[in-house]
Amino acid sequence: MSEQDEKQMMYRHSMSHVLAKAIKELYGIENVKLAIGPAIDNGFYYDFDLNTSISNDDFEKIEAKMKEIIERNEDFKRIEISKTEALNIFKDEPYKIELINELSDDDVISAYYLGDDFIDLCKGPHVENTKYLRSFAYKINRVSGAYWKGSEKNKMLQRIYVFGFLDKNDLKKYINMLEEAMKRDHNKLGRELGLFTTVDYIGQGLPILLPKGARIIQLLQRFVEDEEQKRGWLLTKTPFMAKSDLYKISGHWDHYKDGMFVLGDESKDKEVFALRPMTCPFQYQAYLNESRSYKDLPLRYNETSTLFRNEASGEMHGLIRVRQFTISEGHLMCTPEQLEEEFKNCLELAIFMLKTLGLYEDASYRFSQWDPNDREKYIGTVEQWNEAQDAMKKILDHLQIPYKIGIGEAAFYGPKLDIQIKNVWGKEDTLITIQIDQMLAEKFGMEYVDKDGSRKNPYIIHRTSIGCYERTLAYLIEKFAGAFPTWLAPTQVKIINIADSHLEYAQGVAKKLSNYGIRVEIDDRNEKIGKKIREAQLEKVPYSLIVGDNEVQDKTVSVRKRSVGDIGVVALDEFIERILTEINNKSLE
Amino acid sequence: MSEQDEKQMMYRHSMSHVLAKAIKELYGIENVKLAIGPAIDNGFYYDFDLNTSISNDDFEKIEAKMKEIIERNEDFKRIEISKTEALNIFKDEPYKIELINELSDDDVISAYYLGDDFIDLCKGPHVENTKYLRSFAYKINRVSGAYWKGSEKNKMLQRIYVFGFLDKNDLKKYINMLEEAMKRDHNKLGRELGLFTTVDYIGQGLPILLPKGARIIQLLQRFVEDEEQKRGWLLTKTPFMAKSDLYKISGHWDHYKDGMFVLGDESKDKEVFALRPMTCPFQYQAYLNESRSYKDLPLRYNETSTLFRNEASGEMHGLIRVRQFTISEGHLMCTPEQLEEEFKNCLELAIFMLKTLGLYEDASYRFSQWDPNDREKYIGTVEQWNEAQDAMKKILDHLQIPYKIGIGEAAFYGPKLDIQIKNVWGKEDTLITIQIDQMLAEKFGMEYVDKDGSRKNPYIIHRTSIGCYERTLAYLIEKFAGAFPTWLAPTQVKIINIADSHLEYAQGVAKKLSNYGIRVEIDDRNEKIGKKIREAQLEKVPYSLIVGDNEVQDKTVSVRKRSVGDIGVVALDEFIERILTEINNKSLE
Repeated sequence: MSEQDEKQMMYRHSMSHVLAKAIKELYGIENVKLAIGPAIDNGFYYDFDLNTSISNDDFEKIEAKMKEIIERNEDFKRIEISKTEALNIFKDEPYKIELINELSDDDVISAYYLGDDFIDLCKGPHVENTKYLRSFAYKINRVSGAYWKGSEKNKMLQRIYVFGFLDKNDLKKYINMLEEAMKRDHNKLGRELGLFTTVDYIGQGLPILLPKGARIIQLLQRFVEDEEQKRGWLLTKTPFMAKSDLYKISGHWDHYKDGMFVLGDESKDKEVFALRPMTCPFQYQAYLNESRSYKDLPLRYNETSTLFRNEASGEMHGLIRVRQFTISEGHLMCTPEQLEEEFKNCLELAIFMLKTLGLYEDASYRFSQWDPNDREKYIGTVEQWNEAQDAMKKILDHLQIPYKIGIGEAAFYGPKLDIQIKNVWGKEDTLITIQIDQMLAEKFGMEYVDKDGSRKNPYIIHRTSIGCYERTLAYLIEKFAGAFPTWLAPTQVKIINIADSHLEYAQGVAKKLSNYGIRVEIDDRNEKIGKKIREAQLEKVPYSLIVGDNEVQDKTVSVRKRSVGDIGVVALDEFIERILTEINNKSLE
Repeated sequence: MSEQDEKQMMYRHSMSHVLAKAIKELYGIENVKLAIGPAIDNGFYYDFDLNTSISNDDFEKIEAKMKEIIERNEDFKRIEISKTEALNIFKDEPYKIELINELSDDDVISAYYLGDDFIDLCKGPHVENTKYLRSFAYKINRVSGAYWKGSEKNKMLQRIYVFGFLDKNDLKKYINMLEEAMKRDHNKLGRELGLFTTVDYIGQGLPILLPKGARIIQLLQRFVEDEEQKRGWLLTKTPFMAKSDLYKISGHWDHYKDGMFVLGDESKDKEVFALRPMTCPFQYQAYLNESRSYKDLPLRYNETSTLFRNEASGEMHGLIRVRQFTISEGHLMCTPEQLEEEFKNCLELAIFMLKTLGLYEDASYRFSQWDPNDREKYIGTVEQWNEAQDAMKKILDHLQIPYKIGIGEAAFYGPKLDIQIKNVWGKEDTLITIQIDQMLAEKFGMEYVDKDGSRKNPYIIHRTSIGCYERTLAYLIEKFAGAFPTWLAPTQVKIINIADSHLEYAQGVAKKLSNYGIRVEIDDRNEKIGKKIREAQLEKVPYSLIVGDNEVQDKTVSVRKRSVGDIGVVALDEFIERILTEINNKSLE
């Protein structure tokens, strides 16, 4: 932590005492029992036990009281006391008493006075006097319930969160960032735009893609499958479940079972099945279906694959962390000589996808390695791991990929290059992964006959090209705040007729656009034009075409572009040409 | 059974005695112990216990001996005997003794002599003399193992199957049909053509679609989704599993649980999930996501949906009966007034699909109704069933659909129009289904506000447009004996270069075709041209383009069409135009 960061944490911590004192003064010393009040990443909080329920309406009053305390220029004064003294001083603060009792009898305990009339159990350090806090920028964020010590068995306290920064601009920037994130959060915006929903009686982590969301995923899927086909990948379609026998060969049964949905009970049933958490052992069957020679390699199999992972309830988040997802999976079998070139091709494909979707600038690389001190998590020998990791390191360095290293982040069968991306709240997840595996081919008896007639196991590259479609959709929602590029927009054109007399023309325009495969809707409600335009804007439809008397007469449309506003009247054919060019180019504008 | 059929069964039965006598004479009376020998659908069989193993090589000899016996003009002579007498007569035939002992002591037992030296326990009737069998047409089909009384606990006997018909032409036709079926059987041909495979350690009913099979399904899926989109269907993508709570509302938990894969144990786990056997309750969530008015109806949702059904092991067959399948599912919500029109549209879509794929001529209709005597299988009241079935009957009669009625074949929630199709072996299955449901909307609280402001439950049509993709692929393989129409062929064009010097031109041709989206392969092996052409023919590739000196010089290709043979040399552009027209028209030629 930098010196400045340490200073900020000290100020935040001092401010939490100010908050506690303010609450005591406002609600009555006897009525408020203090729990704990640490500094955190974006400020601080304090947990209180009091009968009055604090609400948003009280924030102004509390902030004013805090300001008043600061302006009193009160001293922070440290004292060091014995456990017995502490128990006496804090005798009216049951939570503090509980904390003190957890200490050993000969501990020296520190506490801080703030002014003469407020004392809190605390390690410090603090500013010397509240006058130093005058320039500190703070704003109460919210109040929420919090169990004492985080346990449901304990009493629910009231936690007041406060944003706090040394620099006024930092607070402003932070609040702006939050407001922007709130607007873009896919888990909120995606629902508002009718892209997806979730339903309690179906379950957590099992999102329902509504027509608009499903359409975007269909477009992405076709784009990815077509691009992969062009690049020599062979499509497969393999089952979503298998007998445990398969997973025992692959190692999933020993190394991944907790993350899998198992059907049946090994102690009772003759056959136990499990839903697949990965596509690898299924896609290998295409390779194994014929005998292979070095002339057949590289063999590249792709699949739009649905996977199932038994995530813990608390882990689920919108479309980013789910229990069932569909992913552009691929497995490539090659000779050692082909490994670098094929790895490079996989990486190029991934970068091409990211650039096309406008996500490239937001991505970073992680070289995920095994943890040699946690051998149980992995299959294979030290030598095999060194070999695979050395091969990947050589390739990454040769391609000058600027990666961070993630120890213990490898797959159980090999190292990974993970392409990482952050959501609007700053949480990082893997979007795309490219992995080198020189272990599973042996386990499955995958071989090729080399030039010299010897039988060898191929290297396998496991890779995604755009990753998981649900997660990609989430990042696209956040990246574009729901205003998708025209080629991906579920509705590309909204036709707005000024009066009923223009409806027939509007329908003709819609039909003509539809014939070109353009996704079009007519808003023929008897509403004011301004309202219809505003609502098309809110739905983030790329183009609105307004048609009235002039347009009907001249066979034109009055075009409003979402990102620009009114761009004038053009002939219908000209508009069609323009939008088709934009769609075919997959323009990000 | 017609008189002619009864006569045929009698002749077959008589022939089984001839077979038994022939085996006794050939292998020694003492060495052969007789089990049973019934007439069956296509002839008859007889089960023998003898130490010598009978093989295909013995068939000629056995047939000759049967002919010899027939030509002896031996009499069939019936006797009626007591159990005691029977036990004495058959004392050297342990299997007959076992059968006799199952009879009660005062039964009159019949047996038939064939000539003086062969007797068999038998109810008859039989022909009077073998001279009547001279014109009977028969051919030994195969020998296989069969447990005595079908139980694994008993001894394995040798069963000789013989095809037998009164009319020589019937035998010929039957054998031709079998040979044709054998050639077309998707479960054999589909594997030979590399369309799919199965793997023991993955499990039964879980086929792996290899690149060529997966490509066909991808093409079908895009075709169906696009056609549905044109016809106003809204794509959804809903989860493949849900908590048991969902299925309890829909009625699946009570009426379909045995057919479902359940994850977890209700007696132990807080949440029990199940894989979905149908899409209905998932897709309803799209309807439920907003409040609906009569103006919003009809609402049509389609989905390329994967379903899971826990079929019994013995039921599985190739791609036709599987545990996991992907299906073009749809649910349509409408008012009672819209029901007929929308039902008709669904039927038109299904017929359009069948016609496009060339399967229409093979399809028949079944009106699947409930069984009022088996109420437990269904939800709803008698009145509701009568209403739904009357509505469907009125529509079907109005549309003049020539249906058969299937009592007890309805879904648990409503009647169905099933479009049935037979595989090469004559087994009928449902390919497409259109169902009327006026019960589930109520269970899920699906409503719309009608013109008068009242809240009503919509009618729901459940429908598929082409049905299950795996099953459709199976029927297409069988229909076209693997020679798919050009638009569906996994490889559409094979380019065959005569010598290495023509390879560059061949690659140029391939690239040009690929740019038009045509699926092309080059056979550049150093093999004789004749062999390369033959192999392309065996792979059932629609077009082979042979390129040699002349073609390179003139920028032409020498075209061989799969169904026609050599069709001459044409300019490359002309060929491209021709094949693109064929593809775009989805020609069945």
